[in-house]
Amino acid sequence: MENSRYQFSKLAGKLKSSMIRELLKYANVPGAISFGGGTPDPETFPRHELAQIASEIIEKEYKYTLQYSVTEGDPELIKQILVLLKRVYGIDGLSNENILITVGSQQALELVGKVLLDPGDYVLVGDPEYLGALSAFRMRDPQFLVVKFENDGPDMNMVEQRIRDLEESGQIRYLKFIYVVSNFQNPSGITTNLEKRKTLVEIAEKYDLLIVEDDPYGVLRFKGEFVPSIMKIGGIERVILLNTFSKILCPGLRIGMVVADKSIIRKMVLAKQGSDLCSPSLTMRLAARYLEKYDVLEQIKPAIALYEKKKNAMVKALEENFGDLEGAKWTDPEGGLFVWFTLPEKYDTMKMFRFAEQNKVFYIPGEAFRPYDQPSSSMRMSFCLPPVEDIYEGIKRLRDAFEKYRISGEL
Amino acid sequence: MENSRYQFSKLAGKLKSSMIRELLKYANVPGAISFGGGTPDPETFPRHELAQIASEIIEKEYKYTLQYSVTEGDPELIKQILVLLKRVYGIDGLSNENILITVGSQQALELVGKVLLDPGDYVLVGDPEYLGALSAFRMRDPQFLVVKFENDGPDMNMVEQRIRDLEESGQIRYLKFIYVVSNFQNPSGITTNLEKRKTLVEIAEKYDLLIVEDDPYGVLRFKGEFVPSIMKIGGIERVILLNTFSKILCPGLRIGMVVADKSIIRKMVLAKQGSDLCSPSLTMRLAARYLEKYDVLEQIKPAIALYEKKKNAMVKALEENFGDLEGAKWTDPEGGLFVWFTLPEKYDTMKMFRFAEQNKVFYIPGEAFRPYDQPSSSMRMSFCLPPVEDIYEGIKRLRDAFEKYRISGEL
Repeated sequence: MENSRYQFSKLAGKLKSSMIRELLKYANVPGAISFGGGTPDPETFPRHELAQIASEIIEKEYKYTLQYSVTEGDPELIKQILVLLKRVYGIDGLSNENILITVGSQQALELVGKVLLDPGDYVLVGDPEYLGALSAFRMRDPQFLVVKFENDGPDMNMVEQRIRDLEESGQIRYLKFIYVVSNFQNPSGITTNLEKRKTLVEIAEKYDLLIVEDDPYGVLRFKGEFVPSIMKIGGIERVILLNTFSKILCPGLRIGMVVADKSIIRKMVLAKQGSDLCSPSLTMRLAARYLEKYDVLEQIKPAIALYEKKKNAMVKALEENFGDLEGAKWTDPEGGLFVWFTLPEKYDTMKMFRFAEQNKVFYIPGEAFRPYDQPSSSMRMSFCLPPVEDIYEGIKRLRDAFEKYRISGEL
Repeated sequence: MENSRYQFSKLAGKLKSSMIRELLKYANVPGAISFGGGTPDPETFPRHELAQIASEIIEKEYKYTLQYSVTEGDPELIKQILVLLKRVYGIDGLSNENILITVGSQQALELVGKVLLDPGDYVLVGDPEYLGALSAFRMRDPQFLVVKFENDGPDMNMVEQRIRDLEESGQIRYLKFIYVVSNFQNPSGITTNLEKRKTLVEIAEKYDLLIVEDDPYGVLRFKGEFVPSIMKIGGIERVILLNTFSKILCPGLRIGMVVADKSIIRKMVLAKQGSDLCSPSLTMRLAARYLEKYDVLEQIKPAIALYEKKKNAMVKALEENFGDLEGAKWTDPEGGLFVWFTLPEKYDTMKMFRFAEQNKVFYIPGEAFRPYDQPSSSMRMSFCLPPVEDIYEGIKRLRDAFEKYRISGEL
């Protein structure tokens, strides 16, 4: 059958396969070293504990775990989330009606789009930006206001300029929210500093905007000081906080969450009803009982130490292999899963990709994370999955691939 | 906070809480008998088997079960689904690329809407119709072409008339598909007969339309003869088949599926990527290993026998309590979970609801299942959850509530 046989919707016409997906198709060939995926190391998952709890809750709580749940999510898990919000962020005084459990934070992102965005509306995003957020928002056909991500967060002059421009053209009411991954951003590894967080809140107050703070990596901090969350600074009426258990527990349960004002949660619950009725009861209760029995913030410490070791290896390998290349630079994140590696400006990491592929080393070209898919001299390098020795070997191969690319003249 | 504080999208403005949800809020009061929910009896769930498998696959297959999956779904589960398609429907010759695993069939319905419907497009649906389908499609803002559901399926004269009207007005290209729950429809319990299935396919061929066949209840047949599926008659290029494990295994895993032409599945995979990246690996693998180890079609037989006993009780109780009421009628389904009970035309089951509530008996007013929310003298009566003695008692209470409603004069 040809594609053209069916009359797809305009939305379907716009959907395109994620570049990551396409590029990483061959990352599983024998001998390949991949810095591509952002998947956590499965050895860090508490499999023995989860196996035991799963068996118990299916036997004893089958009337809940095997049945439909309510759309809002398992109340037992919501209880645990309220405890974590206090421990991790110092956020207090919330109730069940401030929480919605979602199928991964990807669904949280899509629900944000559904309840806030009409076609043509504006969303302020970074360059680079988290690809999953861009693709969720794109389903609502918005326009992206793009601001550069500097080493300490969004370029605030650009933020103010973009917003002033909208105000002057009378379009400010169509700017629905500012989106920001506040800690160890995917893809850049950059953390927005306290001063910029405060300024973002001030701007949101001034122009009556919402901020959508996405923080999947915050607890994976291996050095430096904790920075108060934008929600803690701006409050529940001004900030929507998204989070997930994919990084601190495991991704296979697909549990994300939205923390927001009650009226926003109510709308999202209605949208989720039409999307999937409810999340799987089993995985929600599994997470709830795990959080009840174990201190997840303690349990995750060995994983964090492991990630730090791997991050250090990657930064060291980059120094050793690219230290001599003028104009090359990389971030040295204080947590999370990603290093952002930038070649001198004239290079294009998409064009370099096939040379890397030949050398059996994989990364994600920066182009994937630009809201309007422009060429990029950067690449996202995930250090979480390969063993330390593979990180050194992979970066060596990368330098070799770069040399082949450079002399090919295909800039 | 007031709702009005936030500038929600137009879509959010249209979302309303499901009537079912609102009406059933009080169905859990002590002593209440509810024919409202369509949830299966948890005693029919194979909890011992699932508990053991869950523990095993978390311990031994943690690299899959606790990690991200691919968007298409667990290949092991897809393998089992291909086997079931052959056994249940006699559908053969399909490959992995014809299957997408979803978070319940509600997500399958939403993905159908996303890839096929633009605002203003037409969808042909029944009156009454499955509420979850209507709410999924409504997210794409379509127009419903409504045809009456008779005792053996859609009124085919109306189907042809509606389509001819569209053709004459030059709008036929905006009719994207015909939606039909082919077996034991929710809410009516009605099965579309073979002749009507064939005619639907002929019409679809003639006007180059797709048919979306939804069949969550087909395997729950307790009497009468199996009717070939519309997909078997019309083929994979003409029909999209939706199904779910919620009724033959359990709903808590939230596993639905789409069976369709490869090009349609490809588009849906892209849409699902933006919606939730992937379904939970754990629940998919759990279902896969269960299907591998046990014959689900044999395992479900006691549950089917139980449902038949309950259905018989409900029909008998209706005869005993409403047999004298001229104009009252009810369906006597050959499978599934629902009886459709219709009072004489002048009555409105929404208005009667508060009398039923006073009598602590609950049902879903037919209005909930009408594409344009008009009043209805029918109600959906689920027999799957209450014990047999409660079914008799509940129908008695219902007659009493009806009498109170009748003399109240609030028609």
